[in-house]
Amino acid sequence: MGLQNTAPKTDQEPTLRERGRAKRIARIRSAAEELFAARGYDDVSMSEVARLAEVGEATLFRYVNSKSDLLLMMIGERVAALLDDIERADALAPSGSGRDYLDRIYRIYESRASMYVSDPMNISAFMMVGLDDASSLSAQAISMGDRTLALVTRILEEGQQAGYISDAAHARTVALNCNGAHLHEISRSPVRKLSPETFPTRLRERLAAQLEPLLVVKARPKG
Amino acid sequence: MGLQNTAPKTDQEPTLRERGRAKRIARIRSAAEELFAARGYDDVSMSEVARLAEVGEATLFRYVNSKSDLLLMMIGERVAALLDDIERADALAPSGSGRDYLDRIYRIYESRASMYVSDPMNISAFMMVGLDDASSLSAQAISMGDRTLALVTRILEEGQQAGYISDAAHARTVALNCNGAHLHEISRSPVRKLSPETFPTRLRERLAAQLEPLLVVKARPKG
Repeated sequence: MGLQNTAPKTDQEPTLRERGRAKRIARIRSAAEELFAARGYDDVSMSEVARLAEVGEATLFRYVNSKSDLLLMMIGERVAALLDDIERADALAPSGSGRDYLDRIYRIYESRASMYVSDPMNISAFMMVGLDDASSLSAQAISMGDRTLALVTRILEEGQQAGYISDAAHARTVALNCNGAHLHEISRSPVRKLSPETFPTRLRERLAAQLEPLLVVKARPKG
Repeated sequence: MGLQNTAPKTDQEPTLRERGRAKRIARIRSAAEELFAARGYDDVSMSEVARLAEVGEATLFRYVNSKSDLLLMMIGERVAALLDDIERADALAPSGSGRDYLDRIYRIYESRASMYVSDPMNISAFMMVGLDDASSLSAQAISMGDRTLALVTRILEEGQQAGYISDAAHARTVALNCNGAHLHEISRSPVRKLSPETFPTRLRERLAAQLEPLLVVKARPKG
Protein backbone atom coordinates (compact mmCIF):
# COMPACT_ATOMS: atom_id res chain seq x y z
CA MET A 1 0.00 0.00 0.00
CA GLY A 2 1.46 3.34 -1.09
CA LEU A 3 0.68 5.02 2.19
CA GLN A 4 3.24 3.15 4.19
CA ASN A 5 6.01 3.71 1.67
CA THR A 6 6.73 7.25 2.78
CA ALA A 7 10.48 7.14 3.35
CA PRO A 8 12.76 8.51 0.63
CA LYS A 9 14.66 5.77 -1.15
CA THR A 10 18.16 7.11 -0.50
CA ASP A 11 20.05 8.79 2.33
CA GLN A 12 19.81 12.11 0.54
CA GLU A 13 17.50 14.90 1.67
CA PRO A 14 13.91 14.33 0.53
CA THR A 15 13.09 16.24 -2.60
CA LEU A 16 10.36 18.86 -2.67
CA ARG A 17 8.15 16.32 -4.38
CA GLU A 18 8.74 13.70 -1.71
CA ARG A 19 8.01 16.21 1.04
CA GLY A 20 4.76 17.19 -0.65
CA ARG A 21 3.78 13.55 -0.88
CA ALA A 22 4.54 12.89 2.79
CA LYS A 23 2.52 15.94 3.84
CA ARG A 24 -0.47 14.90 1.78
CA ILE A 25 -0.34 11.40 3.23
CA ALA A 26 -0.23 12.76 6.77
CA ARG A 27 -3.24 14.98 6.02
CA ILE A 28 -5.20 12.08 4.49
CA ARG A 29 -4.41 9.91 7.48
CA SER A 30 -5.48 12.44 10.06
CA ALA A 31 -8.62 13.33 8.08
CA ALA A 32 -9.61 9.65 7.95
CA GLU A 33 -8.93 9.22 11.66
CA GLU A 34 -10.98 12.26 12.57
CA LEU A 35 -13.96 11.32 10.40
CA PHE A 36 -13.99 7.59 11.24
CA ALA A 37 -13.68 8.34 14.96
CA ALA A 38 -16.54 10.85 14.82
CA ARG A 39 -19.05 8.92 12.73
CA GLY A 40 -17.70 5.43 12.04
CA TYR A 41 -16.41 3.79 8.87
CA ASP A 42 -19.79 3.06 7.26
CA ASP A 43 -20.98 6.66 7.32
CA VAL A 44 -17.87 8.32 5.95
CA SER A 45 -17.32 8.78 2.21
CA MET A 46 -14.02 9.08 0.37
CA SER A 47 -15.05 12.50 -0.95
CA GLU A 48 -15.41 13.74 2.65
CA VAL A 49 -11.94 12.42 3.46
CA ALA A 50 -10.56 14.20 0.39
CA ARG A 51 -12.30 17.45 1.37
CA LEU A 52 -11.05 17.42 4.98
CA ALA A 53 -7.54 16.44 3.85
CA GLU A 54 -7.62 19.28 1.32
CA VAL A 55 -6.68 17.08 -1.61
CA GLY A 56 -8.66 16.34 -4.76
CA GLU A 57 -10.49 13.02 -4.92
CA ALA A 58 -8.27 11.88 -7.80
CA THR A 59 -5.22 12.61 -5.64
CA LEU A 60 -6.72 10.67 -2.73
CA PHE A 61 -7.15 7.65 -4.97
CA ARG A 62 -3.51 7.91 -6.09
CA TYR A 63 -2.52 7.22 -2.45
CA VAL A 64 -5.23 4.80 -1.31
CA ASN A 65 -7.09 2.29 -3.45
CA SER A 66 -10.25 2.19 -1.36
CA LYS A 67 -11.96 3.23 1.84
CA SER A 68 -11.09 -0.18 3.30
CA ASP A 69 -7.39 0.61 2.78
CA LEU A 70 -7.88 3.67 5.00
CA LEU A 71 -9.47 1.44 7.63
CA LEU A 72 -6.55 -0.97 7.39
CA MET A 73 -4.15 1.91 7.94
CA MET A 74 -6.05 3.11 11.00
CA ILE A 75 -7.03 -0.15 12.68
CA GLY A 76 -4.58 -2.68 11.27
CA GLU A 77 -1.55 -1.15 12.99
CA ARG A 78 -3.43 -0.89 16.28
CA VAL A 79 -4.51 -4.54 16.15
CA ALA A 80 -0.98 -5.68 15.23
CA ALA A 81 0.46 -3.75 18.20
CA LEU A 82 -2.16 -5.25 20.51
CA LEU A 83 -1.27 -8.76 19.34
CA ASP A 84 2.42 -8.02 20.06
CA ASP A 85 1.43 -6.98 23.60
CA ILE A 86 -0.77 -10.03 24.05
CA GLU A 87 1.97 -12.43 22.95
CA ARG A 88 4.55 -10.74 25.17
CA ALA A 89 2.26 -10.83 28.23
CA ASP A 90 1.29 -14.45 27.62
CA ALA A 91 4.93 -15.55 27.43
CA LEU A 92 5.31 -14.44 31.07
CA ALA A 93 2.04 -15.94 32.35
CA PRO A 94 2.13 -18.74 34.95
CA SER A 95 1.04 -22.25 33.94
CA GLY A 96 0.99 -24.20 37.18
CA SER A 97 -2.62 -25.36 37.07
CA GLY A 98 -5.53 -25.92 34.71
CA ARG A 99 -7.00 -22.63 35.91
CA ASP A 100 -3.80 -20.89 34.79
CA TYR A 101 -4.21 -22.19 31.22
CA LEU A 102 -7.81 -21.02 31.01
CA ASP A 103 -6.92 -17.66 32.56
CA ARG A 104 -4.28 -17.14 29.86
CA ILE A 105 -7.01 -17.56 27.23
CA TYR A 106 -9.44 -15.27 29.08
CA ARG A 107 -6.75 -12.59 29.28
CA ILE A 108 -6.16 -12.71 25.53
CA TYR A 109 -9.82 -12.06 24.83
CA GLU A 110 -10.05 -9.43 27.58
CA SER A 111 -7.39 -7.47 25.69
CA ARG A 112 -9.18 -7.91 22.39
CA ALA A 113 -12.51 -6.99 23.98
CA SER A 114 -11.10 -3.80 25.46
CA MET A 115 -9.92 -2.71 22.03
CA TYR A 116 -13.43 -3.29 20.69
CA VAL A 117 -15.00 -1.32 23.54
CA SER A 118 -12.66 1.60 22.80
CA ASP A 119 -13.85 1.97 19.18
CA PRO A 120 -16.76 -0.38 18.44
CA MET A 121 -17.87 1.00 15.07
CA ASN A 122 -14.49 0.90 13.39
CA ILE A 123 -13.30 -2.36 14.96
CA SER A 124 -16.48 -4.09 13.84
CA ALA A 125 -16.13 -2.57 10.33
CA PHE A 126 -12.52 -3.82 10.26
CA MET A 127 -13.73 -7.31 11.12
CA MET A 128 -16.54 -7.32 8.57
CA VAL A 129 -14.32 -5.96 5.78
CA GLY A 130 -11.71 -8.58 6.71
CA LEU A 131 -14.28 -11.33 6.08
CA ASP A 132 -14.95 -10.02 2.58
CA ASP A 133 -12.88 -12.15 0.22
CA ALA A 134 -12.92 -9.42 -2.43
CA SER A 135 -11.20 -6.96 -0.08
CA SER A 136 -7.50 -6.18 -0.09
CA LEU A 137 -7.79 -6.14 3.72
CA SER A 138 -8.67 -9.79 4.03
CA ALA A 139 -5.13 -11.20 3.81
CA GLN A 140 -4.02 -8.93 6.63
CA ALA A 141 -7.11 -9.65 8.75
CA ILE A 142 -6.58 -13.38 8.18
CA SER A 143 -3.01 -13.22 9.39
CA MET A 144 -4.15 -11.36 12.52
CA GLY A 145 -6.87 -13.92 13.17
CA ASP A 146 -4.27 -16.65 12.69
CA ARG A 147 -2.03 -15.18 15.37
CA THR A 148 -4.74 -15.42 18.05
CA LEU A 149 -5.75 -18.83 16.78
CA ALA A 150 -2.18 -20.13 16.94
CA LEU A 151 -1.60 -18.73 20.43
CA VAL A 152 -4.82 -20.14 21.92
CA THR A 153 -4.22 -23.51 20.22
CA ARG A 154 -0.72 -23.65 21.74
CA ILE A 155 -2.01 -22.83 25.23
CA LEU A 156 -4.65 -25.55 25.00
CA GLU A 157 -2.16 -28.10 23.67
CA GLU A 158 0.27 -27.32 26.47
CA GLY A 159 -2.57 -27.70 28.97
CA GLN A 160 -3.56 -31.01 27.40
CA GLN A 161 0.01 -32.31 27.51
CA ALA A 162 0.25 -31.34 31.17
CA GLY A 163 -3.01 -33.20 31.81
CA TYR A 164 -4.95 -30.13 32.96
CA ILE A 165 -7.18 -29.74 29.91
CA SER A 166 -9.34 -32.52 28.48
CA ASP A 167 -8.03 -33.76 25.17
CA ALA A 168 -11.45 -35.00 24.05
CA ALA A 169 -11.66 -32.00 21.70
CA HIS A 170 -8.99 -30.88 19.22
CA ALA A 171 -7.21 -27.83 20.60
CA ARG A 172 -7.45 -26.04 17.27
CA THR A 173 -11.21 -26.59 17.02
CA VAL A 174 -11.70 -25.18 20.52
CA ALA A 175 -9.50 -22.20 19.60
CA LEU A 176 -11.59 -21.68 16.44
CA ASN A 177 -14.76 -21.70 18.55
CA CYS A 178 -13.26 -19.07 20.88
CA ASN A 179 -12.43 -16.86 17.89
CA GLY A 180 -15.89 -17.55 16.49
CA ALA A 181 -17.57 -16.46 19.74
CA HIS A 182 -15.53 -13.24 19.70
CA LEU A 183 -16.38 -12.39 16.09
CA HIS A 184 -20.02 -13.47 16.39
CA GLU A 185 -20.52 -11.40 19.53
CA ILE A 186 -19.06 -8.36 17.72
CA SER A 187 -21.16 -8.90 14.62
CA ARG A 188 -24.45 -9.36 16.47
CA SER A 189 -24.01 -6.41 18.85
CA PRO A 190 -25.24 -3.62 16.54
CA VAL A 191 -28.24 -5.50 15.14
CA ARG A 192 -29.21 -6.66 18.65
CA LYS A 193 -28.60 -3.15 20.00
CA LEU A 194 -26.28 -4.50 22.70
CA SER A 195 -24.14 -1.94 24.45
CA PRO A 196 -20.39 -2.17 23.78
CA GLU A 197 -19.86 -1.69 27.53
CA THR A 198 -21.35 -5.12 28.28
CA PHE A 199 -19.24 -6.79 25.57
CA PRO A 200 -16.40 -8.05 27.81
CA THR A 201 -18.89 -9.75 30.17
CA ARG A 202 -20.87 -11.27 27.31
CA LEU A 203 -17.73 -12.61 25.66
CA ARG A 204 -16.34 -13.97 28.91
CA GLU A 205 -19.54 -15.92 29.52
CA ARG A 206 -19.43 -17.40 26.02
CA LEU A 207 -15.79 -18.44 26.39
CA ALA A 208 -16.43 -19.94 29.83
CA ALA A 209 -19.24 -22.11 28.44
CA GLN A 210 -16.70 -23.62 26.04
CA LEU A 211 -13.62 -23.78 28.21
CA GLU A 212 -14.72 -24.57 31.78
CA PRO A 213 -16.09 -28.04 30.88
CA LEU A 214 -12.61 -28.91 29.53
CA LEU A 215 -10.90 -28.34 32.87
CA VAL A 216 -9.56 -31.58 34.29
CA VAL A 217 -9.57 -31.66 38.07
CA LYS A 218 -6.36 -33.49 38.93
CA ALA A 219 -5.84 -35.24 42.20
CA ARG A 220 -3.14 -33.53 44.23
CA PRO A 221 0.00 -35.70 44.11
CA LYS A 222 0.52 -37.47 47.42
CA GLY A 223 3.70 -36.90 49.37
CA MET B 1 -42.83 -5.67 1.45
CA GLY B 2 -44.79 -4.93 -1.70
CA LEU B 3 -43.72 -8.08 -3.50
CA GLN B 4 -45.61 -10.42 -1.27
CA ASN B 5 -48.79 -8.40 -1.48
CA THR B 6 -49.84 -9.85 -4.83
CA ALA B 7 -53.38 -11.01 -4.14
CA PRO B 8 -56.25 -8.75 -5.20
CA LYS B 9 -58.00 -7.17 -2.24
CA THR B 10 -61.53 -8.39 -3.06
CA ASP B 11 -63.18 -11.53 -4.45
CA GLN B 12 -63.75 -9.79 -7.75
CA GLU B 13 -61.75 -10.62 -10.87
CA PRO B 14 -58.37 -8.89 -10.83
CA THR B 15 -58.34 -5.75 -12.89
CA LEU B 16 -56.06 -5.34 -15.86
CA ARG B 17 -53.85 -3.19 -13.68
CA GLU B 18 -53.60 -5.83 -10.96
CA ARG B 19 -52.80 -8.52 -13.52
CA GLY B 20 -50.03 -6.36 -15.00
CA ARG B 21 -48.61 -5.82 -11.54
CA ALA B 22 -48.64 -9.55 -10.69
CA LYS B 23 -46.92 -10.38 -13.98
CA ARG B 24 -44.20 -7.83 -13.44
CA ILE B 25 -43.60 -9.11 -9.93
CA ALA B 26 -43.31 -12.68 -11.19
CA ARG B 27 -40.84 -11.55 -13.85
CA ILE B 28 -38.75 -9.62 -11.31
CA ARG B 29 -38.73 -12.58 -8.99
CA SER B 30 -37.62 -15.08 -11.60
CA ALA B 31 -35.01 -12.67 -13.00
CA ALA B 32 -33.53 -12.21 -9.53
CA GLU B 33 -33.54 -15.97 -8.91
CA GLU B 34 -31.82 -16.67 -12.22
CA LEU B 35 -29.14 -14.00 -11.79
CA PHE B 36 -28.43 -14.67 -8.09
CA ALA B 37 -28.23 -18.42 -8.73
CA ALA B 38 -25.84 -17.96 -11.64
CA ARG B 39 -23.44 -15.42 -10.18
CA GLY B 40 -24.34 -14.79 -6.54
CA TYR B 41 -25.86 -11.79 -4.78
CA ASP B 42 -22.73 -9.64 -4.61
CA ASP B 43 -22.08 -9.67 -8.35
CA VAL B 44 -25.60 -8.88 -9.52
CA SER B 45 -26.81 -5.31 -9.96
CA MET B 46 -30.37 -4.02 -9.78
CA SER B 47 -30.08 -2.71 -13.35
CA GLU B 48 -29.34 -6.26 -14.55
CA VAL B 49 -32.39 -7.55 -12.70
CA ALA B 50 -34.51 -4.81 -14.31
CA ARG B 51 -33.13 -5.65 -17.77
CA LEU B 52 -33.75 -9.39 -17.48
CA ALA B 53 -37.22 -8.80 -15.98
CA GLU B 54 -37.97 -6.41 -18.86
CA VAL B 55 -39.02 -3.57 -16.59
CA GLY B 56 -37.51 -0.13 -16.23
CA GLU B 57 -35.24 0.47 -13.24
CA ALA B 58 -37.72 3.01 -11.81
CA THR B 59 -40.46 0.37 -12.03
CA LEU B 60 -38.23 -2.18 -10.30
CA PHE B 61 -37.73 0.23 -7.41
CA ARG B 62 -41.51 0.75 -7.13
CA TYR B 63 -41.78 -2.96 -6.23
CA VAL B 64 -38.58 -3.56 -4.23
CA ASN B 65 -36.74 -1.05 -2.07
CA SER B 66 -33.31 -2.60 -2.42
CA LYS B 67 -31.27 -5.54 -3.65
CA SER B 68 -31.37 -6.97 -0.13
CA ASP B 69 -35.20 -7.07 -0.34
CA LEU B 70 -34.82 -9.31 -3.40
CA LEU B 71 -32.50 -11.55 -1.40
CA LEU B 72 -35.02 -11.67 1.44
CA MET B 73 -37.73 -12.72 -1.01
CA MET B 74 -35.56 -15.51 -2.45
CA ILE B 75 -33.84 -16.87 0.66
CA GLY B 76 -36.08 -15.72 3.50
CA GLU B 77 -38.99 -17.97 2.49
CA ARG B 78 -36.67 -20.93 2.02
CA VAL B 79 -35.08 -20.47 5.45
CA ALA B 80 -38.49 -20.05 7.11
CA ALA B 81 -39.72 -23.29 5.48
CA LEU B 82 -36.57 -25.10 6.59
CA LEU B 83 -37.10 -23.93 10.17
CA ASP B 84 -40.69 -25.24 10.05
CA ASP B 85 -39.32 -28.64 8.92
CA ILE B 86 -36.63 -28.61 11.60
CA GLU B 87 -39.10 -27.82 14.38
CA ARG B 88 -41.54 -30.50 13.17
CA ALA B 89 -38.80 -33.15 12.93
CA ASP B 90 -37.39 -32.26 16.33
CA ALA B 91 -40.79 -32.59 18.02
CA LEU B 92 -40.74 -36.29 17.03
CA ALA B 93 -37.11 -36.97 18.00
CA PRO B 94 -36.36 -39.45 20.83
CA SER B 95 -34.93 -38.13 24.11
CA GLY B 96 -34.06 -41.26 26.07
CA SER B 97 -30.39 -40.54 26.66
CA GLY B 98 -27.84 -37.74 26.72
CA ARG B 99 -26.72 -38.82 23.26
CA ASP B 100 -30.29 -38.28 22.02
CA TYR B 101 -30.26 -34.65 23.17
CA LEU B 102 -26.96 -33.93 21.47
CA ASP B 103 -28.10 -35.74 18.31
CA ARG B 104 -31.17 -33.49 18.16
CA ILE B 105 -28.87 -30.47 18.10
CA TYR B 106 -26.55 -32.01 15.50
CA ARG B 107 -29.55 -32.75 13.26
CA ILE B 108 -30.73 -29.12 13.41
CA TYR B 109 -27.36 -27.91 12.18
CA GLU B 110 -27.11 -30.69 9.60
CA SER B 111 -30.29 -29.32 8.04
CA ARG B 112 -29.02 -25.76 8.15
CA ALA B 113 -25.65 -26.86 6.75
CA SER B 114 -27.28 -28.68 3.84
CA MET B 115 -29.15 -25.52 2.88
CA TYR B 116 -25.85 -23.62 2.90
CA VAL B 117 -24.16 -26.29 0.75
CA SER B 118 -27.00 -26.04 -1.79
CA ASP B 119 -26.46 -22.30 -2.39
CA PRO B 120 -23.39 -21.03 -0.54
CA MET B 121 -23.05 -17.60 -2.14
CA ASN B 122 -26.61 -16.45 -1.54
CA ILE B 123 -27.01 -18.03 1.90
CA SER B 124 -23.84 -16.35 3.08
CA ALA B 125 -24.96 -13.03 1.56
CA PHE B 126 -28.30 -13.45 3.38
CA MET B 127 -26.45 -13.96 6.64
CA MET B 128 -24.12 -11.00 6.16
CA VAL B 129 -26.94 -8.65 5.12
CA GLY B 130 -28.91 -9.87 8.14
CA LEU B 131 -26.08 -8.73 10.42
CA ASP B 132 -26.17 -5.23 8.96
CA ASP B 133 -28.24 -3.13 11.32
CA ALA B 134 -29.03 -0.62 8.58
CA SER B 135 -30.70 -3.31 6.46
CA SER B 136 -34.44 -3.90 6.28
CA LEU B 137 -33.57 -7.61 6.28
CA SER B 138 -32.09 -7.63 9.74
CA ALA B 139 -35.38 -7.90 11.69
CA GLN B 140 -36.36 -10.96 9.67
CA ALA B 141 -32.89 -12.53 9.94
CA ILE B 142 -32.94 -11.90 13.70
CA SER B 143 -36.27 -13.65 14.13
CA MET B 144 -34.94 -16.65 12.17
CA GLY B 145 -31.80 -16.76 14.27
CA ASP B 146 -34.00 -16.56 17.37
CA ARG B 147 -35.99 -19.63 16.32
CA THR B 148 -32.88 -21.84 16.18
CA LEU B 149 -31.56 -20.28 19.36
CA ALA B 150 -34.83 -20.94 21.22
CA LEU B 151 -35.06 -24.53 19.99
CA VAL B 152 -31.46 -25.45 20.89
CA THR B 153 -31.81 -23.72 24.28
CA ARG B 154 -34.95 -25.74 24.99
CA ILE B 155 -33.27 -29.05 24.04
CA LEU B 156 -30.32 -28.29 26.31
CA GLU B 157 -32.55 -27.25 29.20
CA GLU B 158 -34.61 -30.44 28.87
CA GLY B 159 -31.38 -32.45 28.84
CA GLN B 160 -30.15 -30.60 31.92
CA GLN B 161 -33.41 -31.20 33.76
CA ALA B 162 -33.22 -34.89 32.89
CA GLY B 163 -29.66 -34.94 34.24
CA TYR B 164 -28.05 -35.91 30.93
CA ILE B 165 -26.42 -32.56 30.13
CA SER B 166 -24.11 -30.71 32.51
CA ASP B 167 -25.72 -27.58 33.87
CA ALA B 168 -22.37 -25.93 34.56
CA ALA B 169 -23.00 -23.68 31.51
CA HIS B 170 -26.16 -21.68 30.78
CA ALA B 171 -28.15 -23.45 28.08
CA ARG B 172 -28.72 -20.21 26.21
CA THR B 173 -25.02 -19.37 26.17
CA VAL B 174 -24.20 -22.80 24.76
CA ALA B 175 -26.94 -22.35 22.14
CA LEU B 176 -25.49 -18.95 21.25
CA ASN B 177 -22.07 -20.53 20.82
CA CYS B 178 -23.57 -23.17 18.49
CA ASN B 179 -25.19 -20.44 16.37
CA GLY B 180 -21.93 -18.51 16.49
CA ALA B 181 -19.95 -21.50 15.21
CA HIS B 182 -22.43 -21.91 12.36
CA LEU B 183 -22.30 -18.26 11.32
CA HIS B 184 -18.55 -17.95 11.83
CA GLU B 185 -17.88 -21.05 9.75
CA ILE B 186 -20.06 -19.63 6.95
CA SER B 187 -18.41 -16.22 7.11
CA ARG B 188 -14.83 -17.52 7.07
CA SER B 189 -15.33 -20.07 4.27
CA PRO B 190 -14.91 -17.71 1.28
CA VAL B 191 -11.93 -15.79 2.64
CA ARG B 192 -10.26 -19.05 3.71
CA LYS B 193 -11.16 -20.63 0.36
CA LEU B 194 -12.80 -23.60 2.10
CA SER B 195 -15.00 -25.76 -0.08
CA PRO B 196 -18.74 -25.67 0.73
CA GLU B 197 -18.73 -29.48 0.42
CA THR B 198 -16.63 -29.83 3.58
CA PHE B 199 -18.87 -27.41 5.51
CA PRO B 200 -21.09 -30.00 7.25
CA THR B 201 -18.02 -31.87 8.58
CA ARG B 202 -16.31 -28.68 9.70
CA LEU B 203 -19.44 -27.48 11.49
CA ARG B 204 -20.07 -30.85 13.12
CA GLU B 205 -16.54 -30.87 14.54
CA ARG B 206 -16.99 -27.38 15.97
CA LEU B 207 -20.32 -28.26 17.57
CA ALA B 208 -18.91 -31.49 19.01
CA ALA B 209 -16.06 -29.59 20.68
CA GLN B 210 -18.69 -27.55 22.54
CA LEU B 211 -21.33 -30.17 23.22
CA GLU B 212 -19.56 -33.49 23.89
CA PRO B 213 -17.83 -32.23 27.07
CA LEU B 214 -21.31 -31.40 28.46
CA LEU B 215 -22.53 -34.98 28.22
CA VAL B 216 -23.11 -36.47 31.66
CA VAL B 217 -22.48 -40.19 31.79
CA LYS B 218 -25.19 -41.45 34.09
CA ALA B 219 -24.92 -44.73 35.92
CA ARG B 220 -27.48 -47.19 34.62
CA PRO B 221 -30.23 -47.57 37.25
CA LYS B 222 -29.88 -50.88 39.05
CA GLY B 223 -32.69 -53.39 38.91
